[in-house]
Amino acid sequence: MKTRFTSTGNLNALMNDLNITNELLIGYPVAKDFDFSELYPSLKYVINNVGDPFIESTYKVQTHKTEREVIAFFAQLFRANPEDYWGYVTTGGTEGNLYGLYVARERYPNGMVYYSETTHYSVKKNIHLLNIPSIVIRSQENGEIDYEDLKNTLLSNRHIPPIIMTNFGTTMKEGKDDVSKIKSILEKLAVKSYHIHSDGALSACYGSFIEPRIPYDIKDGADSISLSGHKFIGSPFPCGIVLTKRSYRDRIANDIAYIGSLDTTITGSRNGHAVLFLWYAINKMGAEGLRKRYKHSLKMTTYCIEELKKIEINAWSNPGAITVVFPRTSEKLRNKWQLATEDHITHIICMPNISKEQIDDFITDVLEEQKENAFGKESFNSTLTEI
Amino acid sequence: MKTRFTSTGNLNALMNDLNITNELLIGYPVAKDFDFSELYPSLKYVINNVGDPFIESTYKVQTHKTEREVIAFFAQLFRANPEDYWGYVTTGGTEGNLYGLYVARERYPNGMVYYSETTHYSVKKNIHLLNIPSIVIRSQENGEIDYEDLKNTLLSNRHIPPIIMTNFGTTMKEGKDDVSKIKSILEKLAVKSYHIHSDGALSACYGSFIEPRIPYDIKDGADSISLSGHKFIGSPFPCGIVLTKRSYRDRIANDIAYIGSLDTTITGSRNGHAVLFLWYAINKMGAEGLRKRYKHSLKMTTYCIEELKKIEINAWSNPGAITVVFPRTSEKLRNKWQLATEDHITHIICMPNISKEQIDDFITDVLEEQKENAFGKESFNSTLTEI
Repeated sequence: MKTRFTSTGNLNALMNDLNITNELLIGYPVAKDFDFSELYPSLKYVINNVGDPFIESTYKVQTHKTEREVIAFFAQLFRANPEDYWGYVTTGGTEGNLYGLYVARERYPNGMVYYSETTHYSVKKNIHLLNIPSIVIRSQENGEIDYEDLKNTLLSNRHIPPIIMTNFGTTMKEGKDDVSKIKSILEKLAVKSYHIHSDGALSACYGSFIEPRIPYDIKDGADSISLSGHKFIGSPFPCGIVLTKRSYRDRIANDIAYIGSLDTTITGSRNGHAVLFLWYAINKMGAEGLRKRYKHSLKMTTYCIEELKKIEINAWSNPGAITVVFPRTSEKLRNKWQLATEDHITHIICMPNISKEQIDDFITDVLEEQKENAFGKESFNSTLTEI
Repeated sequence: MKTRFTSTGNLNALMNDLNITNELLIGYPVAKDFDFSELYPSLKYVINNVGDPFIESTYKVQTHKTEREVIAFFAQLFRANPEDYWGYVTTGGTEGNLYGLYVARERYPNGMVYYSETTHYSVKKNIHLLNIPSIVIRSQENGEIDYEDLKNTLLSNRHIPPIIMTNFGTTMKEGKDDVSKIKSILEKLAVKSYHIHSDGALSACYGSFIEPRIPYDIKDGADSISLSGHKFIGSPFPCGIVLTKRSYRDRIANDIAYIGSLDTTITGSRNGHAVLFLWYAINKMGAEGLRKRYKHSLKMTTYCIEELKKIEINAWSNPGAITVVFPRTSEKLRNKWQLATEDHITHIICMPNISKEQIDDFITDVLEEQKENAFGKESFNSTLTEI
């Protein structure tokens, strides 16, 4: 690095860029309505939550106790057995899913992973990393797993313990797999040895408040569950949690004690500030605060769909979802509003910080573009039908 | 979490605890002499450096450009080919080593890992995670790998591509494996297909300034190298970097493109603040600043050894190392000063922030304990001989 900054010029430019891009961010599931300034003095310390949060370390500049409180909060939210849960604060959804699959592989070293085609791309990377065989299952049009295809595929592999990755909110359409339906398929096939990992990425934060309920949590039958903390709750750092059963974690601990290691987590050295920030946020919000945030998001989702329909854009959402799906927009709009787009669709995720004004501004931009184009809708791919 | 804080009482207590434990921290390799307050305003933003730093993402609230500058700095420090390097900012040493082994496995799917018995415990966990066969090699008394044992073991497995994990600073004694010696063993055995990953955890930050040089970097023959950023440089969050060859990364990219993924990193969502903080620190220090920090640490190491010897404690360090090794201390001292201890030894790592005063305070504590015990040295295990 040859250009060292003598003034703070470069830094200011960087900060400015961050501010501008942050304002326009509506395509990604990231809540921005937080204020952690009370915690800034903690940045003087190197807080490293190294290792298992339930085991004391000689490194004392950590927030392990705080971390156990965070895990306890989510254990309650995900209806885990109070006597048999374990978890830790991860770097985000990817690590949480990697851990769930790792636990599953330790339980069933000869297992095979089943995941639907709409599953987040990082899952494929995780499976590759862990070196586990896998099968891709068809998805329904709304992003949910195709239960029939799952059943048929399980049927022809009954000798191999299945490790089933379920989605509780797919990336593009927020489709949700019903854990109860999957359990009943396994029961019908008399499969006794299996592991279900629920990828709760964004939606697990409000899963308990969705009506009617879509089964996804530990009580519903998931053996492990992961979620992102920086999405619905909001945090400057990517973070998340993974929750599983104490007894499964003990299995990992035994296996790694055997190979001479002590650490049951994946990353080892872990961001203690992320733990502190997450703890601070859930302390302020509580479960009731999460519910309120969800209600607001849901209202904005309805509003956004209505407004888009008014200008003849086929927008829709899955039941209980806060993701508005519509036909692919122009590149100009996608870049300006940082809208994730895949194949024929684009989405807006109505995060708790989204306002009517932002939706209106977006609609104005779409309208303007419609006017610019002769017949109005050239920038949208209108071949996609509403489902 | 039932006890929500209505006042900031709990938070204050927590901050206090952090302050006290931070003051006494001399056993762990963590620099504490930093001031990042100029960057605190950036904590308003969710900076997520999702994915490969060399590929633009639609998520724009990131510091990918900054990250490439950080990687460029270390590529120069580790004498990588300017036309053929790649890397990213990790969550710390564990992820860096996991990545190095992952790259190695993609290059040689039938490879076998060789690592010495003094290797950090997380490496065993990484190997287990990646599902690669491995062999443990004896270590010498000073923590360095036993080259003779390595040679003999390689000799009987010449049909399997070796993946060699070398240590550049073992956890307890800061022992360093000589990459050149390892390369010449491989040459003698006519082994052409191999991967050397250099675990630079703490010491790679000052490896270039050690005299006489101990070969460890890309030019010396390492195919990948990882280091921790929160140790010698200092950062509130655990972080690090992994550096490898662009061509190897392309291999990973091809493999994961084949399985339908896009992301060449391990964690996916990544802490953009860690990148920003690391960039800020190395911009302020430059390579020259790192050299100065090392010189100070080395001076303190000599001072610490001399002072311990004055009170008849057999303290020593490896050539060029900043880790002072001595016989196991009492539990009381270990707890107070957070001293890592393994088997018969305890160590102090003379990080850049350590002062003569702190060493003197520690010596005073030791002296006091010597006086309390009848013959002075009961709290130390004096069976360990100096090497």
